[in-house]
Amino acid sequence: MSVTVRPLAQGDKAQWQALYDGYHAFYDRPGLPQDFFDRGFARLMAGDPHDYAGLVADEDGRLLGLVHYLFHAHMWFPEGICYLQDLFAAPDARGKGVGRALIQGVYDAADAAGVPRVYWTTQEFNYAGRMLYDRIGERTPFIKYNRPLDEI
Amino acid sequence: MSVTVRPLAQGDKAQWQALYDGYHAFYDRPGLPQDFFDRGFARLMAGDPHDYAGLVADEDGRLLGLVHYLFHAHMWFPEGICYLQDLFAAPDARGKGVGRALIQGVYDAADAAGVPRVYWTTQEFNYAGRMLYDRIGERTPFIKYNRPLDEI
Amino acid sequence: MSVTVRPLAQGDKAQWQALYDGYHAFYDRPGLPQDFFDRGFARLMAGDPHDYAGLVADEDGRLLGLVHYLFHAHMWFPEGICYLQDLFAAPDARGKGVGRALIQGVYDAADAAGVPRVYWTTQEFNYAGRMLYDRIGERTPFIKYNRPLDEI
Amino acid sequence: MSVTVRPLAQGDKAQWQALYDGYHAFYDRPGLPQDFFDRGFARLMAGDPHDYAGLVADEDGRLLGLVHYLFHAHMWFPEGICYLQDLFAAPDARGKGVGRALIQGVYDAADAAGVPRVYWTTQEFNYAGRMLYDRIGERTPFIKYNRPLDEI
Repeated sequence: MSVTVRPLAQGDKAQWQALYDGYHAFYDRPGLPQDFFDRGFARLMAGDPHDYAGLVADEDGRLLGLVHYLFHAHMWFPEGICYLQDLFAAPDARGKGVGRALIQGVYDAADAAGVPRVYWTTQEFNYAGRMLYDRIGERTPFIKYNRPLDEI
Repeated sequence: MSVTVRPLAQGDKAQWQALYDGYHAFYDRPGLPQDFFDRGFARLMAGDPHDYAGLVADEDGRLLGLVHYLFHAHMWFPEGICYLQDLFAAPDARGKGVGRALIQGVYDAADAAGVPRVYWTTQEFNYAGRMLYDRIGERTPFIKYNRPLDEI
Repeated sequence: MSVTVRPLAQGDKAQWQALYDGYHAFYDRPGLPQDFFDRGFARLMAGDPHDYAGLVADEDGRLLGLVHYLFHAHMWFPEGICYLQDLFAAPDARGKGVGRALIQGVYDAADAAGVPRVYWTTQEFNYAGRMLYDRIGERTPFIKYNRPLDEI
Repeated sequence: MSVTVRPLAQGDKAQWQALYDGYHAFYDRPGLPQDFFDRGFARLMAGDPHDYAGLVADEDGRLLGLVHYLFHAHMWFPEGICYLQDLFAAPDARGKGVGRALIQGVYDAADAAGVPRVYWTTQEFNYAGRMLYDRIGERTPFIKYNRPLDEI
């Protein structure tokens, strides 16, 4: 048995939703409405080059993790850049290299698209994540600011 | 005399290039080739909804600053999000509120597009910038990681 | 069997040295000379109120961890303050609550001395340590600067 | 006219207090009781090697700034270490190099004491201070944790 990283497929919806719900629970947003997942899954499957694509880590039909990524324009790089946004491994699948394999899957997809630059952001105190990111990525000195909005 | 924030216009190229060159010099990338500026300006003027737009701070025809911004898709927010990437004020125009006015200009453009969420990143040690950002934005705990690439 | 936190004692030298050597190896200073350990142990046992004291985590005679602490003057607090400097648990004793018990031991010693304030510093990327520190301490926004010295 | 850095002297009390009060106001502790200043000044003048000493920046009898420093033991360095705790320049004296001169004064005092290592901490968002510290000091990756205490 081994873990394979492959593009998200139509039949993955139930397992994908369970994982993505776990991801949002990690960020203190449990219980998002079904509509959120329906629309998100539809977008991931639509193949729009200006919208997100998804990869999953598949172990004999069981999905152990997911990642979403987006190619977008960048003023400095004419070929654009790849934003890795949502990365999640099932809690009971930790330690199998799922996170690393999913990030590598995005690197490979970025290479295939001719857009080798990939970036992501993470909370400074996401210690478990950063243990992995320090090995497979490079921390930059950039920090993120948001426009203050009451509703966020 | 007062400073007006307005969209970048075709006649702004020479002044825009001087400012954008100053911006890149600040990030230790002086002397970019003319082609970089030609292509960048053309993109900003093309009106592509998936590419950057630009605003400038104009004081009686003299450009005091620039900002570039991009709307891109976001998995969590169906309306998308606005990335403010390049912000620069001429060194001899500091203290006139140029940076603040340009950020406000992006906020207004984002509201007009129905995409109120705006974010940007900055180096942790960009003290002068952060003095402004702390007043007009909200620092998040997110830090940025890059894929390690030899050529970057 | 259980872990007890108690003051360092004369008979602990060999086990203390093995732990303290492991601590310095973690900070990329392996192989310190014997004289370093001899003098350090003598200082810890001397009972000088202006020098460090030590606690150890003892499981049936086996030392699983150590911590050193110092009371020093503070301009703002007439009673002084307690600096917790060296904290280390044997790698094969992780997960037993040794680090937490040692920090609590310093808190108790500080209370007994009438100097309840305790602080320490850690590298921002000491993720494993910070997982514990976030539970038993409070992160402050203070960062440390050093005088630049060639020999450090 | 020029700024001289010299040890705090008995006749400085009124000017020292005005500056130190300004320092505490910067850290959101305005209006400390007179007793706080009386005891602090007495400690600084007492010459206790285990307590703080003070330096002031003097321009023709007007005090423009102050700094306090403490030598304390350090487990790793037998000669001890110097903690620079309170640094303040009068707001209307900024830009004269007062802060830099005071830090250099502590470096010189540390050299004279045979304790060349000097450190200090500052809030991550003390941008004005860090502009100076990055030039005269070295940022370390160490961050500070406090014991949680209700009364602090």
